[in-house]
Amino acid sequence: MIYLYSAQDGERYQHLLQQALPQHQVCCWPQPVEAAQVSYGVVWNPPAGFFAGMTQLQAVFVLGAGVDRILRRDDLDPAVPVIRLSDAGMAQQMLEYVLYGVLHVQRRMDQYQRQQQHRQWQAVAATAASETRIGVLGLGEIGGKVAQALAAMGYAVAGWSRQGRQLPGVADFVGEQGLPALLARSDILVNLLPATAATRGLLGSELLRQLPRGAALINAGRGEQVDEAALLGMLDSGHLRFALLDVFVVEPLESVHPLWSHPAVLLTPHIAAMTLAEPAVAQIVANLQALQQGLPPQGLVLRERGY
Amino acid sequence: MIYLYSAQDGERYQHLLQQALPQHQVCCWPQPVEAAQVSYGVVWNPPAGFFAGMTQLQAVFVLGAGVDRILRRDDLDPAVPVIRLSDAGMAQQMLEYVLYGVLHVQRRMDQYQRQQQHRQWQAVAATAASETRIGVLGLGEIGGKVAQALAAMGYAVAGWSRQGRQLPGVADFVGEQGLPALLARSDILVNLLPATAATRGLLGSELLRQLPRGAALINAGRGEQVDEAALLGMLDSGHLRFALLDVFVVEPLESVHPLWSHPAVLLTPHIAAMTLAEPAVAQIVANLQALQQGLPPQGLVLRERGY
Ligand SMILES: NC(=O)c1ccc[n+]([C@@H]2O[C@H](COP(=O)([O-])OP(=O)(O)OC[C@H]3O[C@@H](n4cnc5c(N)ncnc54)[C@H](OP(=O)(O)O)[C@@H]3O)[C@@H](O)[C@H]2O)c1
Ligand SMILES: NC(=O)c1ccc[n+]([C@@H]2O[C@H](COP(=O)([O-])OP(=O)(O)OC[C@H]3O[C@@H](n4cnc5c(N)ncnc54)[C@H](OP(=O)(O)O)[C@@H]3O)[C@@H](O)[C@H]2O)c1
Repeated sequence: MIYLYSAQDGERYQHLLQQALPQHQVCCWPQPVEAAQVSYGVVWNPPAGFFAGMTQLQAVFVLGAGVDRILRRDDLDPAVPVIRLSDAGMAQQMLEYVLYGVLHVQRRMDQYQRQQQHRQWQAVAATAASETRIGVLGLGEIGGKVAQALAAMGYAVAGWSRQGRQLPGVADFVGEQGLPALLARSDILVNLLPATAATRGLLGSELLRQLPRGAALINAGRGEQVDEAALLGMLDSGHLRFALLDVFVVEPLESVHPLWSHPAVLLTPHIAAMTLAEPAVAQIVANLQALQQGLPPQGLVLRERGY
Repeated sequence: MIYLYSAQDGERYQHLLQQALPQHQVCCWPQPVEAAQVSYGVVWNPPAGFFAGMTQLQAVFVLGAGVDRILRRDDLDPAVPVIRLSDAGMAQQMLEYVLYGVLHVQRRMDQYQRQQQHRQWQAVAATAASETRIGVLGLGEIGGKVAQALAAMGYAVAGWSRQGRQLPGVADFVGEQGLPALLARSDILVNLLPATAATRGLLGSELLRQLPRGAALINAGRGEQVDEAALLGMLDSGHLRFALLDVFVVEPLESVHPLWSHPAVLLTPHIAAMTLAEPAVAQIVANLQALQQGLPPQGLVLRERGY
């Protein structure tokens, strides 16, 4: 049996999965099931204890790209393979989101919005795309596509990853030693890293200080990668000019949080790249069939590295 | 002699022109010259009477794409060829500007900014690029490149011109008869028309009413093409959701104008596509040499059609 948990669109996913996998019974939470009957989980942020008693679990398919929360659970046997979505329509959405932030900075829309509030008509010198230096942290399924597309549009793009990745038009910076050089040349820093032990708190004052004065931050990775107090300090001091933030240490962002009203911050409620039901289900179905045939699935998570 | 008028960067243009054309004397306003000695004008919005007495004028090169103001002058002999810039780096800038407005609408950044003001955390369903229908008015050097690039990014693009133009991925709508069908399918209307007798006031209530309810307008053509009172009415009634405006009937926009403070308006001070000195001078030099060899210049304006 396949047991599904999704706070949104549960019935839609159930219908799509059942259609594609008629030989399996697809049940959807909160429908009660016999835990020992569950062979596969298809989930996004299920409640604590969800996996308790699932002794026959073959694999868990995550309805998203990030697996930080699922790996942290204590009700899931670490021997059960966790498979996440690889792109599945998210990279295109993320590109749109990041590009909006890039254009906001490059074309000085932050300044023009301020001027509009003061009824001030004043042209500001524009920066060409080729002179706009973007640093992308994380060159995976999503970060890799974003970096490559921005480079193809003429931006001066550099990327950062653990192992290094050659992408057309993207300067390659690798590991801890490569980070300072990437930061020093990034007018706009885009965070698309997975949340792991190594990346938690990475974007603190030590890292942000290494950006050129007046740089901007776009964070659509995970909130816990950012030291929000340090970020606010950098925005207040003017070391950072602008931040576009989609993810936060605590979500929903607490209503008293100072980020809500900071004049240099645009923020969105974790919507940069949403899971699209059709491509997500198609990928899960293909992976489930691969597993049953003993073939390697796409997007298998390596627990020891955390993504 | 070449006589130059540019309110900004006059010395820079003079230097670039003189370097490229050592056999010509290049003078720059307000340096006084003998009008009868001037063979070529290189200008952007010169003061009234600027061309008086220029009896030997061979051609006027405009430091921009729009020629509405130069054609309206009474001090310029209508027999003198007027040559405008063809792209010269403006199409790329315009694409950036239009794309910013498209992403603002498509990714509901207007709504997220409103929600941010109210500390409201609420995801809104996203619209895919392929479901975002964009109508581009004007498929010339600039509009054609913008329409084609947006189509290549996956948007559902239609274009409108006088004679029709086949561009990859862009649905072609032609002339007055083609306009209603283009409007009916445009979630985002992008105006990149030249200001002529036929386009002045075109974007009034009759045209805007034909857009789907909740549509958005991006105007980077010319302000006088828009009936600003009608636009404000449509924004107030909610028939239009949002407008990104770069050009206005009167520029600078008067400080009492209601557009400044309308919550559904983002406005910029005529900066969508600025003239870039190097490519502009390169194009003017090539055209001047073509004229001297009796060859047709690129960007020759046809007075009778007005662009
Ligand atoms: N805001 C949203 O709506 C949203 C939506 C989807 C995803 N996301 C976030 O985006 C993240 C990335 O997704 P993805 O599918 O692109 O992940 P992915 O394919 O697993 O790629 C991760 C990338 O990060 C690099 N990386 C990981 N740890 C690193 C470290 N310590 N130092 C340097 N580089 C490191 C990896 O390097 P190697 O290539 O060398 O392994 C890889 O390039 C997700 O984990 C999620 O947090 C957010
Ligand atoms: N805001 C800014 O910063 C900025 C910067 C640069 C330019 N602009 C504006 O953009 C305009 C366009 O520039 P461009 O270089 O692309 O001009 P262009 O090459 O002359 O192209 C004009 C286009 O508009 C079409 N058109 C003209 N009159 C029409 C009518 N009555 N009905 C339907 N279509 C009509 C033409 O149709 P055909 O192809 O059939 O002739 C052509 O496709 C300029 O005139 C200027 O006003 C603004």
